[in-house]
Amino acid sequence: MKATAKAHTNIALIKYWGKRDESLILPMNNSLSLTLDAFYTETTVTFNHDLDEDIFYLDNELIVGDQYTKVSNFLELIRNFADIPNLFAEIRSTNAVPTAAGFASSASGFAALAAAATRALDLQIDEPTLSRLTRQGSGSACRSIYGGFVEWEKGAEDDGSDSYAVHIAPQDHWDVRVAAVVLSSDMKKVSSREGMKRTVETSPFYSGWVDNIPTDLTQIKAAIHARDFEKMGEIAEANCQKMHATTLGANPPFTYWHDTTLTVMQTVQSLRAKGIAAYFTIDAGPNVKVLYQPENEEVVQQTLLNIPGVTNVILSRSGQGITYK
Amino acid sequence: MKATAKAHTNIALIKYWGKRDESLILPMNNSLSLTLDAFYTETTVTFNHDLDEDIFYLDNELIVGDQYTKVSNFLELIRNFADIPNLFAEIRSTNAVPTAAGFASSASGFAALAAAATRALDLQIDEPTLSRLTRQGSGSACRSIYGGFVEWEKGAEDDGSDSYAVHIAPQDHWDVRVAAVVLSSDMKKVSSREGMKRTVETSPFYSGWVDNIPTDLTQIKAAIHARDFEKMGEIAEANCQKMHATTLGANPPFTYWHDTTLTVMQTVQSLRAKGIAAYFTIDAGPNVKVLYQPENEEVVQQTLLNIPGVTNVILSRSGQGITYK
Repeated sequence: MKATAKAHTNIALIKYWGKRDESLILPMNNSLSLTLDAFYTETTVTFNHDLDEDIFYLDNELIVGDQYTKVSNFLELIRNFADIPNLFAEIRSTNAVPTAAGFASSASGFAALAAAATRALDLQIDEPTLSRLTRQGSGSACRSIYGGFVEWEKGAEDDGSDSYAVHIAPQDHWDVRVAAVVLSSDMKKVSSREGMKRTVETSPFYSGWVDNIPTDLTQIKAAIHARDFEKMGEIAEANCQKMHATTLGANPPFTYWHDTTLTVMQTVQSLRAKGIAAYFTIDAGPNVKVLYQPENEEVVQQTLLNIPGVTNVILSRSGQGITYK
Repeated sequence: MKATAKAHTNIALIKYWGKRDESLILPMNNSLSLTLDAFYTETTVTFNHDLDEDIFYLDNELIVGDQYTKVSNFLELIRNFADIPNLFAEIRSTNAVPTAAGFASSASGFAALAAAATRALDLQIDEPTLSRLTRQGSGSACRSIYGGFVEWEKGAEDDGSDSYAVHIAPQDHWDVRVAAVVLSSDMKKVSSREGMKRTVETSPFYSGWVDNIPTDLTQIKAAIHARDFEKMGEIAEANCQKMHATTLGANPPFTYWHDTTLTVMQTVQSLRAKGIAAYFTIDAGPNVKVLYQPENEEVVQQTLLNIPGVTNVILSRSGQGITYK
């Protein structure tokens, strides 16, 4: 009735951008990510027949409101799946995902929650099933079930039964590093949920985005298997720019970029002009993540830290999938 | 055998972005502009049977190389049109278009050149014919034949006979102002010619751009006729973002934006949040042009001048079309 699980966040190299089903969280396109070891959530779930509702503590603080509702709604999914109505739980999570780093803590959060809850109930489920359940808490969380390189297959079924993540290459396949560049910026004004929705519904570029994904995926998977860093970086950097292009065509148009976002992008391109292989990717926010190789760690970190408006640079390696205590 | 003409540059509110014919300069989409009184070129053309080649002075400096070749090639077009082989000319131009303002001096330059050359030869041509000739020197120059609001109709014919500019509303229709915001940035790395070409050939967003133009045009023309500043500004600002979005999808991707470009864009949006109607538009370079109304001139100018990285703000009103001396 009790279990503890740890899950890491992930950075998408081919972005998840747009839902075809809002309530089941089914995406319009496949995406591909690298799990990161520096950012994780550890969660203990304890089911208890004496409880008449779920209780959620995050970093030892009792959570109420929207954040509680999301977690409790997700546990309700697990209860339905396990056919145990009215068996509530205490959930205790600790986050090692600084919100300011621009990583969605929801990715590691829902992956750890799904893993701990199903383990606490001693449900014998395979990883695709766990990924499929996790997806319904937060889309990109379904990729955090695995370590290393992971692909979320969008699937074709209306019920989402074939929409889950699969393993592309394990954590130790390749020592690729990621620097999370933290900017001294305000919070984003358009949530990724709202941003996706507006883009899917109004941007004349959205079909170009979706149509282009299979090409990017085929090429980046070949680059990952061949450990071709330049090729992988080029595709990831171009893919992220395509994602952000779609928002400029939305009605009304919007961008997640700030002035320093542009500076970091252009600094990364300047590093390449000097022969240092580094590539950027940007999620639905102003912060930038930079892909680099171990031998360039110092020059990449120092160059990024020297940019005015950059407050922190957090380094990460390839991380592992779900672990249990 | 001698004539002097003056032409103003123009700022596109619906952008010209992509050619369907490189040599005839035929565009993929209609565009719409406002002619600006602060930026112009004055050109005197003197045909002379004693010359055995064209001579070109710009701001009293003898020009050779690529810039000379473009001008001389354009005069060759005029010679073919007028059926006067081997009659060469001296061309003297003065530019009141600061290159640093990010305006293509080619727009006012080729419009003034076409007008002066055809007048020097006493050719009796109408404005559409003059616009069509001008287009073959520099695409957006064909809009500078007229004052006020102007549309360049892309046409459908392979020979370009129906691709020229038409008048939408005269100079005195509406007192709309434009602030040209000059940034302390490097020169652009990708020329607009090269940028268009790469985008047309490789961006998955290009068809979305072209398909969306008729809607933007219909709406902005209605707004111009109704003198609805907010509506006109919204459409222009959105259209420019769509143009720039297409470059992020090109292979390799590129952007004309610098960090300060983003800052200016977001400052303009902040002005609106304070109730001051101002809208930005950006051509194929980092500089920004801001549309505003006369009553807001001081606050707009001061706000833009206060942005770090902005070196100058040049104010302009609606300008007139070709004039002769």
